[in-house]
Amino acid sequence: MNILITNDDGIHADGLLALRAELTRVGSVMAVAPERPRSATGHSITLHKPLRINRVRLPDGGMGYSTNGTPSDCVVLGMIELEPKPDFVVSGINYGPNLGEDLTYSGTVSAAMEATMFDVPAFAISVASYDVGDYAFAAEFAARMVRAVVAHGLPPNTFLNVNVPDLPPEQIRGVAITRQGRRRYEGRLDKRADPRGMPYYWLSGDLLDEESAADTDVHAVAEGRISITPVQLDLTNHAFLDDLRGWEF
Amino acid sequence: MNILITNDDGIHADGLLALRAELTRVGSVMAVAPERPRSATGHSITLHKPLRINRVRLPDGGMGYSTNGTPSDCVVLGMIELEPKPDFVVSGINYGPNLGEDLTYSGTVSAAMEATMFDVPAFAISVASYDVGDYAFAAEFAARMVRAVVAHGLPPNTFLNVNVPDLPPEQIRGVAITRQGRRRYEGRLDKRADPRGMPYYWLSGDLLDEESAADTDVHAVAEGRISITPVQLDLTNHAFLDDLRGWEF
Repeated sequence: MNILITNDDGIHADGLLALRAELTRVGSVMAVAPERPRSATGHSITLHKPLRINRVRLPDGGMGYSTNGTPSDCVVLGMIELEPKPDFVVSGINYGPNLGEDLTYSGTVSAAMEATMFDVPAFAISVASYDVGDYAFAAEFAARMVRAVVAHGLPPNTFLNVNVPDLPPEQIRGVAITRQGRRRYEGRLDKRADPRGMPYYWLSGDLLDEESAADTDVHAVAEGRISITPVQLDLTNHAFLDDLRGWEF
Repeated sequence: MNILITNDDGIHADGLLALRAELTRVGSVMAVAPERPRSATGHSITLHKPLRINRVRLPDGGMGYSTNGTPSDCVVLGMIELEPKPDFVVSGINYGPNLGEDLTYSGTVSAAMEATMFDVPAFAISVASYDVGDYAFAAEFAARMVRAVVAHGLPPNTFLNVNVPDLPPEQIRGVAITRQGRRRYEGRLDKRADPRGMPYYWLSGDLLDEESAADTDVHAVAEGRISITPVQLDLTNHAFLDDLRGWEF
């Protein structure tokens, strides 16, 4: 099995290296990742400027490819250029959670989405903390996930989004299959003046509310469980179609 | 009603100006849009560099704001900074279709998604052609859409994605309420050498296949109908949850 790994934290991120080390037990692994952190890039692809690809030596001594593109670009490049062709894509291990509405902003999740468009099985995996102690357990779980996906198969146009709590392994309370919850941010603008007195803004936001229903990703991780959410490409609100047909335009 | 308009084609795009002209009949309109085209940016927000906002005179003599951010940044900026606060967001009129899997890449669609996260009713509107003759009919339809959404209300966490065929108005065969179809591209890399002999790549792709089932957005537009798809924030593949609960990890 040829596994393409990528992320949005950049080719030198600890999470990517931990993933690489574990997945070599399951298959042949090639890293294609952004040369610099590209978080919050969403499902962005690079159509308006040239892409560069560099073969680089990784801190663990292995070889990989760094690009000036987004995580989704890395998947496209890997799917088109790598020989042999990847037959599995793992994106991560992300530094920080990808829960609720984080999913649509996440470069890491979007890379798994891009792989799904190539009909290649994929998942995104994150450690749900901004003070990650150790990626080793999540990396080991990623290897188990690859085996499970190969054994069972995924439905068409679907990938998995995995979040691992940042806890000592013995404190992790198993796996929960979840739906996407809600995590909203209160958008905030920090207005400053540059040295020439011209205004500029930093975008930030405090977590406003989380939907904590028991079957959500947000809840599972808060309870110390590994959350696995099946994510689909179809964005249609099917339940609303009939109502909408009754509208006058 | 205070309507924020944005797009991913940039503050000077004809589609934005046509939208502005028509929506002033329905409410007070403020344009906040990227200073340059930002298509294919997906649901990308700018967290790692400062945002700049400039008050600019538009080609039609009105005032608006241009930013160095993405379409989603424009919505966040508008929702936080504009007084009075926008109570409706329209994103477009996009140059080119946003059908099938284009949705996840589209900056225009992502701006409507961002508005939905602020619980503000929103839709994205596109003219489904890369050789747009005239935005006037789509702009007029946008005004009708605003009225319809205000009259009926949208369900929570849902917005609309509208695609108008680029046909003379008398040839348009009414409105179709649709689900998101499939439009896949065959990823292609054009490898070139720069003046110093270093390789670089252009990403492109030919349309590979379209799902043409009668109830899809792709099909409706091909048939000369205006396609309206309800889009939801929840990406969970609910139908697969039970199966997934049976997996061993």
